[in-house]
Amino acid sequence: MPAFWRTVRGLPGPLRAPLSLLFPSGAAQGGARRVSGAADVNSFVSRTKTCGELRSAHVGQEVTLCGWIQYQRQQQFVVLRDFQGLTQIIIPQDEAASHLRKILYDTPVESVVRLTGTVVPRPPGQTNPRLPTGDIEVKVKTVEILNSCKKLPFEIKDFAKKTEALRMQYRYLDLRSVQMQYNLRMRSQVVMRMREYLCNRHGFVDVETPTLFKKTPGGAKEFVVPSREAGKFYSLPQSPQQFKQLLMVGGLDRYFQVARCYRDEGSKPDRQPEFTQIDIEMSFADQAGIQALIEGLLQYSWPDEKGPITIPFPSITYDEALATYGTDKPDTRFEMKIIDVTDVFRNTEVGVLQKSLNEPRGTVRAICIPQGAKHLRNKDLESLNELAKSQFNQGILHFILRSDGSMKSALGKFLNEEQKLELVRAVQANVDDIVLLAAGEHEKVCSTLGKLRLEAADLLEARGQSLRNPSAFHFLWVVDFPLFLQKEENPRQLESVHHPFTAPHPSDEHLLYTDPAKVRGQHYDLVLNGNEIGGGSIRIHSAKLQRFILETVLKEDTELLSHLLEALDSGAPPHGGIALGLDRLICLLVGAASIRDVIAFPKSFKGRDLMCNSPDYIAPEELEPYHVKIAEPMPEVKVKSN
Amino acid sequence: MPAFWRTVRGLPGPLRAPLSLLFPSGAAQGGARRVSGAADVNSFVSRTKTCGELRSAHVGQEVTLCGWIQYQRQQQFVVLRDFQGLTQIIIPQDEAASHLRKILYDTPVESVVRLTGTVVPRPPGQTNPRLPTGDIEVKVKTVEILNSCKKLPFEIKDFAKKTEALRMQYRYLDLRSVQMQYNLRMRSQVVMRMREYLCNRHGFVDVETPTLFKKTPGGAKEFVVPSREAGKFYSLPQSPQQFKQLLMVGGLDRYFQVARCYRDEGSKPDRQPEFTQIDIEMSFADQAGIQALIEGLLQYSWPDEKGPITIPFPSITYDEALATYGTDKPDTRFEMKIIDVTDVFRNTEVGVLQKSLNEPRGTVRAICIPQGAKHLRNKDLESLNELAKSQFNQGILHFILRSDGSMKSALGKFLNEEQKLELVRAVQANVDDIVLLAAGEHEKVCSTLGKLRLEAADLLEARGQSLRNPSAFHFLWVVDFPLFLQKEENPRQLESVHHPFTAPHPSDEHLLYTDPAKVRGQHYDLVLNGNEIGGGSIRIHSAKLQRFILETVLKEDTELLSHLLEALDSGAPPHGGIALGLDRLICLLVGAASIRDVIAFPKSFKGRDLMCNSPDYIAPEELEPYHVKIAEPMPEVKVKSN
Repeated sequence: MPAFWRTVRGLPGPLRAPLSLLFPSGAAQGGARRVSGAADVNSFVSRTKTCGELRSAHVGQEVTLCGWIQYQRQQQFVVLRDFQGLTQIIIPQDEAASHLRKILYDTPVESVVRLTGTVVPRPPGQTNPRLPTGDIEVKVKTVEILNSCKKLPFEIKDFAKKTEALRMQYRYLDLRSVQMQYNLRMRSQVVMRMREYLCNRHGFVDVETPTLFKKTPGGAKEFVVPSREAGKFYSLPQSPQQFKQLLMVGGLDRYFQVARCYRDEGSKPDRQPEFTQIDIEMSFADQAGIQALIEGLLQYSWPDEKGPITIPFPSITYDEALATYGTDKPDTRFEMKIIDVTDVFRNTEVGVLQKSLNEPRGTVRAICIPQGAKHLRNKDLESLNELAKSQFNQGILHFILRSDGSMKSALGKFLNEEQKLELVRAVQANVDDIVLLAAGEHEKVCSTLGKLRLEAADLLEARGQSLRNPSAFHFLWVVDFPLFLQKEENPRQLESVHHPFTAPHPSDEHLLYTDPAKVRGQHYDLVLNGNEIGGGSIRIHSAKLQRFILETVLKEDTELLSHLLEALDSGAPPHGGIALGLDRLICLLVGAASIRDVIAFPKSFKGRDLMCNSPDYIAPEELEPYHVKIAEPMPEVKVKSN
Repeated sequence: MPAFWRTVRGLPGPLRAPLSLLFPSGAAQGGARRVSGAADVNSFVSRTKTCGELRSAHVGQEVTLCGWIQYQRQQQFVVLRDFQGLTQIIIPQDEAASHLRKILYDTPVESVVRLTGTVVPRPPGQTNPRLPTGDIEVKVKTVEILNSCKKLPFEIKDFAKKTEALRMQYRYLDLRSVQMQYNLRMRSQVVMRMREYLCNRHGFVDVETPTLFKKTPGGAKEFVVPSREAGKFYSLPQSPQQFKQLLMVGGLDRYFQVARCYRDEGSKPDRQPEFTQIDIEMSFADQAGIQALIEGLLQYSWPDEKGPITIPFPSITYDEALATYGTDKPDTRFEMKIIDVTDVFRNTEVGVLQKSLNEPRGTVRAICIPQGAKHLRNKDLESLNELAKSQFNQGILHFILRSDGSMKSALGKFLNEEQKLELVRAVQANVDDIVLLAAGEHEKVCSTLGKLRLEAADLLEARGQSLRNPSAFHFLWVVDFPLFLQKEENPRQLESVHHPFTAPHPSDEHLLYTDPAKVRGQHYDLVLNGNEIGGGSIRIHSAKLQRFILETVLKEDTELLSHLLEALDSGAPPHGGIALGLDRLICLLVGAASIRDVIAFPKSFKGRDLMCNSPDYIAPEELEPYHVKIAEPMPEVKVKSN
């Protein structure tokens, strides 16, 4: 197998893209999913076959192939590549073919050629079982150089080893890698399946909503677009939230959109200033209805080679997720759950724990790192301690269970034998397990241990212990979020946990008027392997309730939302919806290291397109129609006129 | 049929949306198109049936319906509406049902209700054959008001008569109209079919490209988006042109995208600052290949109720289109072609014509308005004359053929009988036809007559003469455009007719170096009923040729395109593509008056969203992160802080 094909980094599973991806709707698909015939990727073009499809059954056929010269060898072989695979070309050794040899050898690798030839079997012993086309080669008859490749800035076979910045600068070369081809084709295929499910199976209407919108209340992080009206700006929406609700008021009944969204978060790793969500809204549906829809959607669109996935997905309340995993997006691929050991310590004499227990919502919790003593080093434990201290200002105690049943711990001397036994039993510790303990306020303790749980898992896996199956997909609903939380800068004021359109839990609605901080919302998050991949809610459809929450609970100016309030008053049906983060979902599905690997032309973490150099300076006169000018004294730069 | 349903303006064909639209992939579709089962529009929700699906076969069934109160009548009937249709609800007349009557009568129209009841046949003589559900009614058992509607700002039945501004301000109400429901569902359905064709049938990959891009050379009309880097801006792309070409360089092979594009044209009627195109690019394809693809695409996705359409589409060269129709987007639904009558006048003594004929490219041309004398008035002829004068600075002569074969015209006295006969024969005039004549420079004459041809057709149709079948779809390829034209402000300099990436016609390539103004491009426009609905080209894949055209022919600064030139030098395959204007295509398909009628939330012709009031003022501090400030002294306005 040639070097470029082989050296692509991070390629999951087999070294080549499976056929099911390259023929997206074809024979590789399961029974119910089959459509009539596979996609014809050779229609409308001058090739007769791709470089990935020739097999022994084609021997004797005359074919025309188009592709890139991947590799030249022994004056006799050329390996030709296209999006679908590799085919070995053999140059006849007679004098009559010397011009072919010359052409194919004088042409640099990565040049584009069209050639015709005959499919022949490879001689015995020279077949390549690792290559789908490894049983045959094509004896070339004519060749045409369609475009010669200049010397590239680096050896293409070393490309995958280069920095990400270089890969992004030469993105059009990186896209030739089997990894990027696989990721983008998989993305296209999954989205197509989602559309089939929503549009064809369940009557959803694909509606495009505007991206030249206006600022939403509290809408920081929104890009602005100056308009030709002096002082007036559009803004690029973070989501089509208002429009999807207005579509329900408009009687569209069931809406979806693969929606481009925008968020200006400055420099954040693994975020993109523009991203895509599968945006869905439905009238007359409750939370269970939306959840069932999404479960069906993901099951239907999940690729066979990654599936099957089981539905319904398990569900956990926000409170339970926090108590058990220390986070609202638990990675349920492994255990190491947080255990409440408060009762063990209630009557002990460990002073610091006693103090914690007397705090409001004071608790003692533990996680048990299986076989930690075997795999973790002292410095690992130290780093976990430091993490707890620096990120959460939380102290950590630990003990190791020795093979004689004794406890290696500074804690040991404060506990009697019965208490020790009770503690070991409570955390179900085995010999060589490390147990981490934290005491203090409930949320802080759980958050700390949740973070340490993930860190410990990373450490164990770095030491070769397999905790999380990389091919497993653990979906989880997280429900019953609080509707409001206290503002950090002013705890006496409330803000929405998600957004102000989320309907309160029916059984908590009365609390809105007495103790709004206690109200749970009809919000649901979808979590996959510890990543939030979607979130949605049943919306408020009563104008009166919406106004009360905006004005009285949240103290928001409702003028910016007057059109929405008026719409709710004009016969709005009960409705709810959800949005799935497509980039993240596909990233997890293909096992990519970053969402940048599932986006054709991503921005760097500073929001730059390194290939085409955007954003860029523009001539001052280009700003004139928009009545804006650059505010700060500009550094000495060359301002290009374009 | 209730008033609202009936009074929707401009509704094509039958008064209700056909079932094929409401069950997009279902039984209403033709054989080869059928997928397994119709869409289930009642999944995941609390209704069991829609208001459009009950028939005699359902009599006896207990059903749950959700919808809007459309109409209340005689204390006994309520008409319930949803996206799919209308169902008559009957309230039992016994005392036990008095609470139902009270609820259904105290609730304003356009309120949202859920009700259960039994499907019963309508009494003999009370069926409504114009309503699909007209054979049955539902005897209500329970009813629940889900949301009460306040008094609307106008009678809903008068809504369609209101101004478009009012319709846009209350867009969520306008969306309830059968017309908007039909348009948006049709749009969704056609796009879904296109995706099936491209993705499932022909292996195209749906790739999302960035919308935060940078200014392109000569890219006026591009919205700018300030970034957090002082003085640097993104811009919103007019099309994904560069990215689609780079995808081909990246070996994606066949790309498509339903792409949001942006163009800031200020106030133009029937244009939108953001619009959508079906964007396609293919490697190793020639012009015929792209054309065949598009023909297949449109045939496949064309709705049965509007079809079938015949392929291949006819093709006409740019020169021929100009000579015959006076435009590069001919409406071929009717004749009235431009006829060359130069020869008739070559030896006549009409001074003004002689002068014109002696000009370079001097010509005399005519169009013949069939039965014009019967239907057009003197003022119509005057207005045609004025139009020619004001828009083209072109004088017009005319004659009418009298029943005795004589010519009613100022021209008559300058022609002898033989010349008159020759003229009548050349234009194939019948008695009562009006013939318009123009003399002068070829392009000016043809453009004038092309415009008069359309004006005359409008006039004839306004007088009740049917020229263009409103349900006919005449597709036409226009090919062999010139590659360059002279700049208006500096005729010694050339600019691209379409864009600088269009490849020259192979047989004209040598002229690039000698007489570039004569080079034809491998560009093709798709025209439907006189509207340009798409355009594309084979692209330049040679870096050397691209550089020559940019630098030497067009005198462009290539620095802004250095990444593209470098990409072409890195093994770019031959490639070409096309973009279809989706808004215009759907507009023509559904017979809407404006593209605003096929867009859920359109902007006004001034670029405003009248519903949510965008663009809008923003607080100065919101501009700070972007290093811009408002340039002009602002008028006294209330700047809202949001």
